[in-house]
Amino acid sequence: MQGLAPYSKFISLITAMLLLALAGVASGERQRNAPCKEMTMYYHNILYDGANTANATAAFATQPTLLSRSASVNDTYFGEIVVFDDLVTAGPALSSEPVARAQGFFFYDKKEAPNAWFAFSLVFNSTAYRGTLNLMGADLIAEKTRDISVVGGTGDFLMARGVATLRTDSFEGLYYLRLQMDIKLYECYHV
Amino acid sequence: MQGLAPYSKFISLITAMLLLALAGVASGERQRNAPCKEMTMYYHNILYDGANTANATAAFATQPTLLSRSASVNDTYFGEIVVFDDLVTAGPALSSEPVARAQGFFFYDKKEAPNAWFAFSLVFNSTAYRGTLNLMGADLIAEKTRDISVVGGTGDFLMARGVATLRTDSFEGLYYLRLQMDIKLYECYHV
Amino acid sequence: MQGLAPYSKFISLITAMLLLALAGVASGERQRNAPCKEMTMYYHNILYDGANTANATAAFATQPTLLSRSASVNDTYFGEIVVFDDLVTAGPALSSEPVARAQGFFFYDKKEAPNAWFAFSLVFNSTAYRGTLNLMGADLIAEKTRDISVVGGTGDFLMARGVATLRTDSFEGLYYLRLQMDIKLYECYHV
Repeated sequence: MQGLAPYSKFISLITAMLLLALAGVASGERQRNAPCKEMTMYYHNILYDGANTANATAAFATQPTLLSRSASVNDTYFGEIVVFDDLVTAGPALSSEPVARAQGFFFYDKKEAPNAWFAFSLVFNSTAYRGTLNLMGADLIAEKTRDISVVGGTGDFLMARGVATLRTDSFEGLYYLRLQMDIKLYECYHV
Repeated sequence: MQGLAPYSKFISLITAMLLLALAGVASGERQRNAPCKEMTMYYHNILYDGANTANATAAFATQPTLLSRSASVNDTYFGEIVVFDDLVTAGPALSSEPVARAQGFFFYDKKEAPNAWFAFSLVFNSTAYRGTLNLMGADLIAEKTRDISVVGGTGDFLMARGVATLRTDSFEGLYYLRLQMDIKLYECYHV
Repeated sequence: MQGLAPYSKFISLITAMLLLALAGVASGERQRNAPCKEMTMYYHNILYDGANTANATAAFATQPTLLSRSASVNDTYFGEIVVFDDLVTAGPALSSEPVARAQGFFFYDKKEAPNAWFAFSLVFNSTAYRGTLNLMGADLIAEKTRDISVVGGTGDFLMARGVATLRTDSFEGLYYLRLQMDIKLYECYHV
């Protein structure tokens, strides 16, 4: 029976490894591995300013709040909601390759300084991808980079989850904002 | 020792299979299998029109935006937000069996054509189910069917994830909208 | 070869267990185990009332809807949206240890009684935690406790999922609301 010894140890090792891994999955503790997908893209918010009807892809949905007008002389737009159907491109230039539309909204939510909260869908409809990614989270404008959550997806991004890192790439007053978005998905489903 | 050979192969095979599967789980790559739950239901949006106080279950929360009024003669409602507490039924008829309430909001978000973005909870409180499903995503009205994400759930739907396919079942002007929702959950937790 | 018998049974047992567990993971059926993290905290909504500019951390973003004004003499605020950057503390007292900011919005969404829908981020920035949790769901105010979903997270809460149980701890008219939040995460990633 001495030939069994290596098998015995092998079985024990495998068993231990697998039970550990399964225990992790079962208990909800997981190890973050490399992303199953990474993408960088640029979000262009072109806000309606009263004159740019042809170019605008976003608009204030609400009036300035009483609080935003009383809080300080430096308006931080507290409570104002912006709805958008914004172009998302592969490079920073507005004229670079279109990648997706970002459809959703954000609102300013801090009294002391401009700060925002976003929820939107990235709608892909190209030869590369068809489907959507759904995102939400706090856009802490004062931070150089900040993370929001990818909470779901459809089509080619079915049930995807991950994180999008936002970086203000350009901010030309209130009416043009460009965000670099580095998206890392850590859960990807194959159909 | 020749009797060990089949075991040896068997162990190798099992090990390979399991490691592959676990590697998949660990790396975030997953195979989409059959849904763990499927449901079809109908969402009825009855918008307040100024006269239907008793029947209305939804209302514009905001005024038309300046952009929506300037963009074109064909108003696409860009930026207008609708809040709802809508009835959800088992069949298409408003009088069919109540299944849930849909509580949440949508807004119109396209300049060129009506298009919307939704976030809401399906609130179940019946002998069949108690709990909620939370959904969000782009409602691409021009598409015959479009998918939004089920990003979470509570009670009987604890931590559920999946996809809801929307189909416009009836659209009687602005004030009555019926959507068929085919919900497929691919992650279900057992308490 | 009689010495192999116990191994054979052992291998079969382990194999069966593992295949069952993996089948569960693969099919989307999961067992809810103990939370990987539990936290209790208190959310303080201090609404702007026209005079409390210094203290207010929330404001109505919209005007009362026509429906909310027509529905009944007891205003249920149907359709009104509140944006907030609220303090979250370890204990119920406003002066107790700060834990996070809650940045997001809610709106009232029921004609017959006050009822709300929330989406927000808990923004942690302390020695204990750095990162965010993203939540959404129906706040069924009439229920003693009600659950909303934790649909994602970033930083120390990367990709977290779970449930937050809300309990109205204090409600002083419209302008001060305190919610106890018991957060249980069932999926936690380790970086």
